[in-house]
Amino acid sequence: MSIDLKEYLRVKRKIVEERLERLWGSVDDPSGLLNAMRYSLMAGGKRLRPILCIAASEAVGGSQEDVIHAACALELIHTYSLIHDDLPAMDNDDLRRGKPTSHKVYGEAAAILAGDALLTAAFEILTDPKHISANPILWMQTTRLIARAAGYAGMIQGQMLDIDSEGKDIELGELEKLHRLKTGALIEVSVRSGAILGGGTNNEIKALSEYGRAIGLAFQVYDDILNIEGSQERLGKKTGTDLDRKKATYPLLLGMSKAKEKGQDLVANALQALTIFDKRGEPLRELARYVAERKR
Amino acid sequence: MSIDLKEYLRVKRKIVEERLERLWGSVDDPSGLLNAMRYSLMAGGKRLRPILCIAASEAVGGSQEDVIHAACALELIHTYSLIHDDLPAMDNDDLRRGKPTSHKVYGEAAAILAGDALLTAAFEILTDPKHISANPILWMQTTRLIARAAGYAGMIQGQMLDIDSEGKDIELGELEKLHRLKTGALIEVSVRSGAILGGGTNNEIKALSEYGRAIGLAFQVYDDILNIEGSQERLGKKTGTDLDRKKATYPLLLGMSKAKEKGQDLVANALQALTIFDKRGEPLRELARYVAERKR
Repeated sequence: MSIDLKEYLRVKRKIVEERLERLWGSVDDPSGLLNAMRYSLMAGGKRLRPILCIAASEAVGGSQEDVIHAACALELIHTYSLIHDDLPAMDNDDLRRGKPTSHKVYGEAAAILAGDALLTAAFEILTDPKHISANPILWMQTTRLIARAAGYAGMIQGQMLDIDSEGKDIELGELEKLHRLKTGALIEVSVRSGAILGGGTNNEIKALSEYGRAIGLAFQVYDDILNIEGSQERLGKKTGTDLDRKKATYPLLLGMSKAKEKGQDLVANALQALTIFDKRGEPLRELARYVAERKR
Repeated sequence: MSIDLKEYLRVKRKIVEERLERLWGSVDDPSGLLNAMRYSLMAGGKRLRPILCIAASEAVGGSQEDVIHAACALELIHTYSLIHDDLPAMDNDDLRRGKPTSHKVYGEAAAILAGDALLTAAFEILTDPKHISANPILWMQTTRLIARAAGYAGMIQGQMLDIDSEGKDIELGELEKLHRLKTGALIEVSVRSGAILGGGTNNEIKALSEYGRAIGLAFQVYDDILNIEGSQERLGKKTGTDLDRKKATYPLLLGMSKAKEKGQDLVANALQALTIFDKRGEPLRELARYVAERKR
């Protein structure tokens, strides 16, 4: 029943990246904005959110084609959030995925605008009549869920809480809220979008939302762990930075051993939510384990 | 046939602002993000874009209620663009509508995030099933047009061109392209959205798009003129700043007299596009003149 996740990720990544390349058509852009957008978009991410979206669609019997545009839109939103998070006024990071960040290459103004443009383009794609005509109501519903997860009640509020919390003592409950919003909301909605657009039943959508919620938080718990135990080569970004910044993390608040336990529990919850799925849920099972290891 | 535009603007502004206040419901927001969003949104703009949207709907026989959520979304997008344009990395403005700009009050990080959140919230509103259920296809189509006008092929590219052009010699054709993108695209789509969602015929939508295109550029031509001839009290922002910055403007490239002629021609074009409308087009006619005078 087991699948070769490494191969699965390679194939899906390739499909997502081909589609991301083809999104832009031949727009006249003397400003260079599109170059800045594409620089960050094609800088070699894991494509975790689009792959989760596709895997969720396939788990409920839908196809990759059913959800590929939502998958691309989710990656655009994720990329915009990274560009803005890296800005000098935010985390002030020079390196992302082993490459200079957008504002280091294009300057701060262009980086802000490239982020704005990727976010806006996501909604242009989500409302493209070419692919939504089969079921405009489902697309509309999904677009709204994505906007909510990415917005002031989701990811952006999480980033705001994150900035506010730096250098402060925060409690575990606050840390969890912050991460559920900042990282969790978009991961959860990636899975949920795939389930909805893939034609899942209400039960399946509910189960996959729970799965997404669990791995969304697990992702952050392991991110914190890897920031201490991981190597810069493997992660493509600096490690040890959270400690340098005295940033609240799961290992810092819980201790490393309890933090790992928390991560394992969340992965177990995610797998538990998948029990109603047959072998079509196998990629999602492997993805839950991958979130913890992040080796491939 | 003539209407009292001052009264018309007062009534419509009030309706738009009441709706803008009611958009947020009771979201739990310990981060203060919503405060920053509302600060800029409720800082007393002219509400030109939402009013154009409503007036276009009424011109084609639609109602205010048909388009009020699109009108609000357009104002959110406009407000986000102002917050980001004012940032230190962009125009570095301390004052907007007579009040300190977002980054002066909340800091740069919060201002970037408040802009991001307003942009994202616009798309959440545009896909709200509560008001789009009567015609999801039209709403989807309109949402896409708005995303396109606001995005890399529209407003954001215009802002990028604007930043690139500062301190450079640019030609009239380039200046016009810049403004058609930066200011014109969102104004045009405001009128066009109202025409579509108000149930206009293809002919009516086409005529109102032409109208919007003309006043969109006229708005910028007069903005340039007022930056030289207007008073800070009336405009609520500093004047003379374009000259200080050696920014390319219509008066600078054409001379003041030709610039005014250009503005008048554009207003005439806008009025010409309205000839197919009866007295229901009267507010749009008055609005075209208002764009030039901006006194009320």
